[in-house]
Amino acid sequence: MTTQRIEQVRATLESIGADALILTSPANRRWATGFTSAPGVAFSPDVAVITPAYVELLVAAIHADWARGEVAATTRIIAHKGQFVPSLTSYLNERAFNSVAIEADALPYPIARDIEVGVTNTRIEFVTGLRDQWRASKDEGEISSLERAALVTDQVFAEICSALTPGQTEASVARRISARLIENGDGDGLAFDVIVASGPNAARPHHRPGDREIQASEPIIIDMGARIDGYCGDLTRTLWLGGPDQQFRDMYAAVLEAQRATKAVMTAGTPVRDVAAAADRSLQQSGFGEYILHSVGHGVGLEIHESPAIRSDLDIILPLNAVVTVEPGLYVPGWGGIRVEDVVVVGESGCRTLTAAPKLEFD
Amino acid sequence: MTTQRIEQVRATLESIGADALILTSPANRRWATGFTSAPGVAFSPDVAVITPAYVELLVAAIHADWARGEVAATTRIIAHKGQFVPSLTSYLNERAFNSVAIEADALPYPIARDIEVGVTNTRIEFVTGLRDQWRASKDEGEISSLERAALVTDQVFAEICSALTPGQTEASVARRISARLIENGDGDGLAFDVIVASGPNAARPHHRPGDREIQASEPIIIDMGARIDGYCGDLTRTLWLGGPDQQFRDMYAAVLEAQRATKAVMTAGTPVRDVAAAADRSLQQSGFGEYILHSVGHGVGLEIHESPAIRSDLDIILPLNAVVTVEPGLYVPGWGGIRVEDVVVVGESGCRTLTAAPKLEFD
Repeated sequence: MTTQRIEQVRATLESIGADALILTSPANRRWATGFTSAPGVAFSPDVAVITPAYVELLVAAIHADWARGEVAATTRIIAHKGQFVPSLTSYLNERAFNSVAIEADALPYPIARDIEVGVTNTRIEFVTGLRDQWRASKDEGEISSLERAALVTDQVFAEICSALTPGQTEASVARRISARLIENGDGDGLAFDVIVASGPNAARPHHRPGDREIQASEPIIIDMGARIDGYCGDLTRTLWLGGPDQQFRDMYAAVLEAQRATKAVMTAGTPVRDVAAAADRSLQQSGFGEYILHSVGHGVGLEIHESPAIRSDLDIILPLNAVVTVEPGLYVPGWGGIRVEDVVVVGESGCRTLTAAPKLEFD
Repeated sequence: MTTQRIEQVRATLESIGADALILTSPANRRWATGFTSAPGVAFSPDVAVITPAYVELLVAAIHADWARGEVAATTRIIAHKGQFVPSLTSYLNERAFNSVAIEADALPYPIARDIEVGVTNTRIEFVTGLRDQWRASKDEGEISSLERAALVTDQVFAEICSALTPGQTEASVARRISARLIENGDGDGLAFDVIVASGPNAARPHHRPGDREIQASEPIIIDMGARIDGYCGDLTRTLWLGGPDQQFRDMYAAVLEAQRATKAVMTAGTPVRDVAAAADRSLQQSGFGEYILHSVGHGVGLEIHESPAIRSDLDIILPLNAVVTVEPGLYVPGWGGIRVEDVVVVGESGCRTLTAAPKLEFD
């Protein structure tokens, strides 16, 4: 699997026309080499160097053994003991490539500048967007990890639901969810900070759970995800303790219908703007269009937000085996909100839903 | 408290000589304004703009309510709905400052470049190191949060220790620690990924916990931290199930002595290189100097690694009220390692240890 990915990296390297490609983002480095260092961190001083002839990992000395245990036997580990930038620049000056491409998306600006200053006799090209190119379409192993992430997330959701009662604070519920996701995950932590938003707080798509006590007869949004093999689960459900009122029923039905209508157009090759339009049209037709606050979905993988983003202003298509969230939402200031989110795999003739957590059903 | 910090930011702004300072790192933004968005993330599209006359937060529209609830009433919230860079550049072009300083430490390179291209008629200066300047010395509220983070970390450690038995895997212990830290924290997640390293794995300072079963008669390193109000706990203890052998006793005693010797020189105004030298000298004198792999400590606060780093190659002093880890370690390839870590507050005439978790005592 890693071999295939390295070949994909080398194809990119050839198209760029450089002698070596340096992966600086932890997620791309992990994807290409298997070295897991610093999951969930945007940048770490452990980079992968890929040339047509070899793969090297330049890592902090204290990470060397760890890397050795995770990567292919053919990958050379080079341990650096000092500061990251001087180590990288002296490595590059020693290798004396004619040109290198350095992944820049997650590279902090001062580090990029110091590399430019410190590297002599090698042409440096900063490149972006490799993640979208390589990781928008998932391979079999990745889909299997994402399936497991969805399963663990569903299981913890079921457990939490059965214990949810009025009077619990948002923060205490969020902490319990987080703890259970971690206990049932495999050590990579959470996919993202758990959201529990109740009543008026549910009008904020990214609410930070606080001391508010959950009550009966109000919307409660729970957004949560386990991480398995580094891959993110992402599940949102909206609950209501007690018998829901008519506004909630109508809006919930509108959100469910929008999710159905969105999934119905999700086939490999479909422009993401058409997917976004399907969600938008459905919510507009329900009469609640004014309460839309965010786009309907995003790719998910080693990072919680990946390509393809489902947005009307993007000119890209859904690739085969893209794994994407479908999460229409409606938000009414002062009242609350409703969001229902599943994760799907995009196939040749439709999409397959990985999420199995139940949704509300009304008589 | 926030007002004081804003004045500190304004003093920096004056010394830079720009019209506005733009804080792009989540930790500095939180420290200066109180807005907690995206704890633990290196970069988020929510920036603080501080001028001599006002404070503004330019945030994603879906974060606007959240920000409003956390910041001072005088802070203006400006919500942007589109992509971050175009929003920031049109904001800056509208404000038409003569010059702005933009915090660059955590700013991804492509974003910095796009800002430079998109902003017209305003001189942009990218600045670094603001964190070290502002946050190396903690105020009363920060020290109180760090005390609570240490306390929660100690409590979870005690609970885990009492249940530690041979046969448990590193990963399962790490997951239980993580879950308990989160349940007892206040919703900001973990300070860092928990380390449980047993036997030979304990020779790796940054081991990723795996399927190895913990055994009696081997070193077990546990490194863990709760997060309270965003502030990080950081505790390491080395355990041994059963009666320790002579090598372990000797090395453990050497590490404890190095920790004592290091703390003994930690007074406000001491050069960090003198602190590093004290640790090094002590471990060298014990005869185990060849097993040193890392520096003896680092500042800790809203981020797990902050200024002051305790390193022999840095020309800085310990400021008053710096909060720093003291964590000498010895690592023997094939055998394992020993690390003992406390967090201390640097005072005028010595340091005060926040960590209360017990250490091993031998007859």
